[in-house]
Amino acid sequence: MLGRVNHIAIAVPDLAMATASYRDTLGAKVSQAQALPEHGVTVVFVELENTKVELLEPLGEASPIAAFLEKNPAGGMHHICYEVNDILAARDQLSASGARVLGSGEPKIGAHGKPVLFLHPKDFFGTLIELEQV
Amino acid sequence: MLGRVNHIAIAVPDLAMATASYRDTLGAKVSQAQALPEHGVTVVFVELENTKVELLEPLGEASPIAAFLEKNPAGGMHHICYEVNDILAARDQLSASGARVLGSGEPKIGAHGKPVLFLHPKDFFGTLIELEQV
Repeated sequence: MLGRVNHIAIAVPDLAMATASYRDTLGAKVSQAQALPEHGVTVVFVELENTKVELLEPLGEASPIAAFLEKNPAGGMHHICYEVNDILAARDQLSASGARVLGSGEPKIGAHGKPVLFLHPKDFFGTLIELEQV
Repeated sequence: MLGRVNHIAIAVPDLAMATASYRDTLGAKVSQAQALPEHGVTVVFVELENTKVELLEPLGEASPIAAFLEKNPAGGMHHICYEVNDILAARDQLSASGARVLGSGEPKIGAHGKPVLFLHPKDFFGTLIELEQV
């Protein structure tokens, strides 16, 4: 089921500082910041050779990463996104095995314009998993 | 400085259960478990198309992931490992920029038999970063 690691998401309290750190201190290639109000985040992509890291800062009142940053004020690794070929087939297979899909269970259009689902971290040893259809 | 994402490490309290979950529920290719007593962990590699996830379970009395699992009993994302070409040059550049290298500052031989260093998560927004020379 799992294909490539599409990205590793890191929630940060200050996106400008984090971007400067990855660019200047770690010497990575970083994108411009992109506000995604419909997803409640502003994102910067850190482009690595084989995948990317996404630095996420809360945007707006109902950001999905606000609670995480309340618990982890310095920031931290938030989720891993894996690519799948058929997100509905993946969802049905996961549900049949007892894994919980967050929300309504219907894929939403994610930050890259593709269908995504999130899996309950309690079913995967504390790791929040995003599936993205590619 | 940063090259490929070599792996994402996830600490888990029960490696057999986590391995079964990634293999059977998520449909990923997993390795046999490897005990690495000199590193205080038993590891299973989850092979993705472009990188790998390492599932880590504490081994022995002084495991480096024991404190993390005390704080996060269900498990969770523990660190990201990036490849670098020259770990001593990377260390010197990072130290000059004020980033803290954990331990003595001298690279140790990591779980893959290559020199590694860890960077202080407080200097990188709550993310523990491992650098591995390749």
